[in-house]
Amino acid sequence: MIYSTLNIKHPVILGSASPRRQFLLKELGLDFTVVTKDIDESYPKEVAVNSVATFLASKKCAAYNTEVLSGNLVITADTVVILDDKIIGKPNDFDEAVSILQDLSGKKHRVTTGVCIRWDNYSHIIESDTDVYFRDITEQEIKFYINNYSPFDKAGAYGIQDWIGLVAIKRIDGSYHNVMGLPVGELYAFLKSTFNS
Amino acid sequence: MIYSTLNIKHPVILGSASPRRQFLLKELGLDFTVVTKDIDESYPKEVAVNSVATFLASKKCAAYNTEVLSGNLVITADTVVILDDKIIGKPNDFDEAVSILQDLSGKKHRVTTGVCIRWDNYSHIIESDTDVYFRDITEQEIKFYINNYSPFDKAGAYGIQDWIGLVAIKRIDGSYHNVMGLPVGELYAFLKSTFNS
Repeated sequence: MIYSTLNIKHPVILGSASPRRQFLLKELGLDFTVVTKDIDESYPKEVAVNSVATFLASKKCAAYNTEVLSGNLVITADTVVILDDKIIGKPNDFDEAVSILQDLSGKKHRVTTGVCIRWDNYSHIIESDTDVYFRDITEQEIKFYINNYSPFDKAGAYGIQDWIGLVAIKRIDGSYHNVMGLPVGELYAFLKSTFNS
Repeated sequence: MIYSTLNIKHPVILGSASPRRQFLLKELGLDFTVVTKDIDESYPKEVAVNSVATFLASKKCAAYNTEVLSGNLVITADTVVILDDKIIGKPNDFDEAVSILQDLSGKKHRVTTGVCIRWDNYSHIIESDTDVYFRDITEQEIKFYINNYSPFDKAGAYGIQDWIGLVAIKRIDGSYHNVMGLPVGELYAFLKSTFNS
């Protein structure tokens, strides 16, 4: 039923295994293939905290060689959660998830996503920032959430689209989809202005 | 799989036919029944624009007589879209939907939801405000959206969870779920603080 208002002549490759990113790109009405690369997600100490997401998105983009790239448009992304000027990663186990969510409780943090779009000899970077305000959440609520949703693949140990996003998030300032992992509105605006005739 | 962290001894009645409100209340993990009333959704001219949502939520709550209320907890809600200090209603037809979305394009508007909770001899009102920033959208995009999503049951002629919410909304300041029709986080916080022992 849905046909896109986008008209891109390059076949699109999404370089991300994230089901949320795949869902959001599908919702745009875009046809695409998923081709992921194993990337070392480390970054030099010199990279400023608020530049890590764009740095890693570029690093992921750069991993696609000219053979994969040939004629295609590649989209990669990286999302980081920043609290008190420190990057909060994905939790390794239950206790670390509890500890991360206790740190986020009652505070504002920032979610930054970097997106890299690469085609022919060009590339373009998008950065999107959203401030997220958590209300106070109890240990009971945190454990209930982790037991039911296993947020171990998520930076900051939560998904805004999960139960915890309904009960714990007081407000956001910025893009909701950015917190899900892809600032899909900004990506759409860029693709439209660059590729639609 | 999901059991609620809420513990309310009253059976809950949702006084709203909105599928979005029913979806959000289910996501909270709350058991409830839907009982709707036919209400005249008019309001006196003297009601200030930013008080219309809470006025109508209260009016809806007041329509439940003591027989329905007996032992139950009733939740009603009303959502309005405010642009340039005027209330934007639901579109009556295709052309009106186009015209509303053209008015919203490139501008900020405010979405206000009033929620009324009534039980025993008590009632409580919640008001939630979210500012929504649309980027410029074209007539082609507007018509594409209306043709595919028929947003005729929606104040402001759009659903933030639809395709248009992905491509047209630049940012929001406030609660995302409030724009869907129910500030479910504030409702949860109120129910928990009032009813959980």
